[in-house]
Amino acid sequence: MKQISLLGSTGSIGTQTLDVIRTNPDFFRLVALSAGSNITLVLEQIREFKPALVSVMNEADAEIVRKEVGDYTTVLFGEEGLMEVACHPLSDVLVNAVIGSVGLKPTLAAIKAGRDIAIANKETLVTAGHIVTTEANKHGVSLIPVDSEHSAIFQALNGENPKTIDRLIITASGGSFRDRKRENLEGVTVKEALNHPNWSMGAKITIDSATMMNKGLEVIEAHWLFNVPYEQIDVLMHRESIIHSMIEFVDRSVMAQLGTADMRIPIQYALTYPDRLAREAGERLNLWEMEKLHFGKLDMDRYRCMRFAYEAGRSAGTMTTVLNAANEVAVAAFLKNKITFLQIEDLIEESLNRHILISKPNLEEILDADQQTRLFVESKL
Amino acid sequence: MKQISLLGSTGSIGTQTLDVIRTNPDFFRLVALSAGSNITLVLEQIREFKPALVSVMNEADAEIVRKEVGDYTTVLFGEEGLMEVACHPLSDVLVNAVIGSVGLKPTLAAIKAGRDIAIANKETLVTAGHIVTTEANKHGVSLIPVDSEHSAIFQALNGENPKTIDRLIITASGGSFRDRKRENLEGVTVKEALNHPNWSMGAKITIDSATMMNKGLEVIEAHWLFNVPYEQIDVLMHRESIIHSMIEFVDRSVMAQLGTADMRIPIQYALTYPDRLAREAGERLNLWEMEKLHFGKLDMDRYRCMRFAYEAGRSAGTMTTVLNAANEVAVAAFLKNKITFLQIEDLIEESLNRHILISKPNLEEILDADQQTRLFVESKL
Repeated sequence: MKQISLLGSTGSIGTQTLDVIRTNPDFFRLVALSAGSNITLVLEQIREFKPALVSVMNEADAEIVRKEVGDYTTVLFGEEGLMEVACHPLSDVLVNAVIGSVGLKPTLAAIKAGRDIAIANKETLVTAGHIVTTEANKHGVSLIPVDSEHSAIFQALNGENPKTIDRLIITASGGSFRDRKRENLEGVTVKEALNHPNWSMGAKITIDSATMMNKGLEVIEAHWLFNVPYEQIDVLMHRESIIHSMIEFVDRSVMAQLGTADMRIPIQYALTYPDRLAREAGERLNLWEMEKLHFGKLDMDRYRCMRFAYEAGRSAGTMTTVLNAANEVAVAAFLKNKITFLQIEDLIEESLNRHILISKPNLEEILDADQQTRLFVESKL
Repeated sequence: MKQISLLGSTGSIGTQTLDVIRTNPDFFRLVALSAGSNITLVLEQIREFKPALVSVMNEADAEIVRKEVGDYTTVLFGEEGLMEVACHPLSDVLVNAVIGSVGLKPTLAAIKAGRDIAIANKETLVTAGHIVTTEANKHGVSLIPVDSEHSAIFQALNGENPKTIDRLIITASGGSFRDRKRENLEGVTVKEALNHPNWSMGAKITIDSATMMNKGLEVIEAHWLFNVPYEQIDVLMHRESIIHSMIEFVDRSVMAQLGTADMRIPIQYALTYPDRLAREAGERLNLWEMEKLHFGKLDMDRYRCMRFAYEAGRSAGTMTTVLNAANEVAVAAFLKNKITFLQIEDLIEESLNRHILISKPNLEEILDADQQTRLFVESKL
């Protein structure tokens, strides 16, 4: 029986994590969860899973939840609540499924408390990869990826010597606008951008897929998770998202993980690793039904965010913090129709250009760079 | 340093095995080899690799070789020589790269002598899979596949619990005649049949690919190597032979091994497992250069040999021995223009239909079924 703390229970990864727990009551138990402002859903989740601890975003919501649930559930709120959920004394593993760099502090707290981390919150590693991985090593804690691409690499690496990795090959569907040229991206709407061809995901990650920033963040995440230099991380265009990612080893053998577009596969794997648990109801991948898989070269001029990500990654230090913070604010502004789609890229580029790099930042310097970047982008809206 | 005995040094797998040894002199040493009747080539190989022991097919050839090589190499011949090479006291591993069920007895001898077996000789497992695997278990010996499909499955299984296998998915290029309908196979020539679209291989296996018997033998080989029932072994048409094979696990995650059409990758892996050794000069797999990979359903009416193989596999016992023996003689007859391409299938079908199954045969009964089948097929030529 694995006891689970879950940050971000009402999001796309959060609800699918709960589905994995629901389907396997003999293997998993939810002990604590945190959620944002979807109180209707969080109340349903509390009634079903009866966690010992819950945290919501603000005090007023906490009051509402407290009145509705029984004495078995403690209700907290805000950053303190998030930290308590992350480090709950009964939990074996923290599933970090929040969106954005807000996941950083609770992740560090959970690592220090010796919890393994199933990490769906890529912004945490992009913002402060060197601190998170150093702390994880220090405390002997596993960072197990949940993202389908990183789970694929993690699965392909199972049983292998990491020193024999020659190249990581991360696949990219191309997002909502993959069939448009750059000149046809002027004036695209939020609704169009949210229409991802393969995956049903949250709004932020869907926009990140359309700009290709999602893949850029994944390259940086892969760099930290697998300790592979950027020169050895390639992105391969692959429309169907069936091959989730690959490793080329030094003997030129390539190992890949494939599957349907069902995030419950990598979520469950992160919770059962190194074992696997049957998913009887899961859809099989029948490649003969697909007939064809397509592959293509990535064009860094078409997808400028990809170039920004590689450059920020190579600069390292606070540069990836700035990349992520600028992107978070710009995407939120696009979703509120405050800026155009292409202005997302422009705001990120401006933020990177004006930033003065700190090469080996401590946590405070990272949080400061994050904050300064957010203020700068907001000032431009 | 791994010391290697090699059966079948002048064939396609044999020469590529020597290339792997040649490229990695610090890791591998050839101590013994056996060859057939290509004496010119075997002399070159002896001069280059200086094995302690060599065996050729007959006494006259042995005499010729003995005169040409120095005192450091002992030269034997025939079945006895084959057994001595297989069990050479200095060897750590036997690479069995002979063609046909002639590989069975030396394989069993090497297993009893405690040698690991890198097995490229699928007919050995098809002919007597239950005896070979039982003996390997008894003597704590590893059977490491060399065939690209089985190596792919073996690599995908690395680090996994074999009990979590749901399905093996063996890929099939379709062979030389994949774009022809059944009715267009009348009168095809040996030359046409030998023109494989993806792989450069020996004559027997290339004809087996054209009839799809090669894939049938691989299904049976996979059944024995991985202890998976036939109901859980699928064949998937895949023209490009880039995905070499896959495992679907119980959680619906699919692990695959991919690569260029270079047999030195699986040969080397069989010798370095569980490690990998750099192949700097090896060609990289760049999927974006391929653009598309194709997949399709296997048609058992188009490829009758596939149906024969599944049926023989399910009948088990001596039935797969008969399948293989009939195929060996029929293919040899086709290569000598004694029968037509489609008569290969007819002769196999007749042999299977008239055979009276022995369910749990001993080695003698297997060798007898093999012999009787060969005589029967020869009598029909």
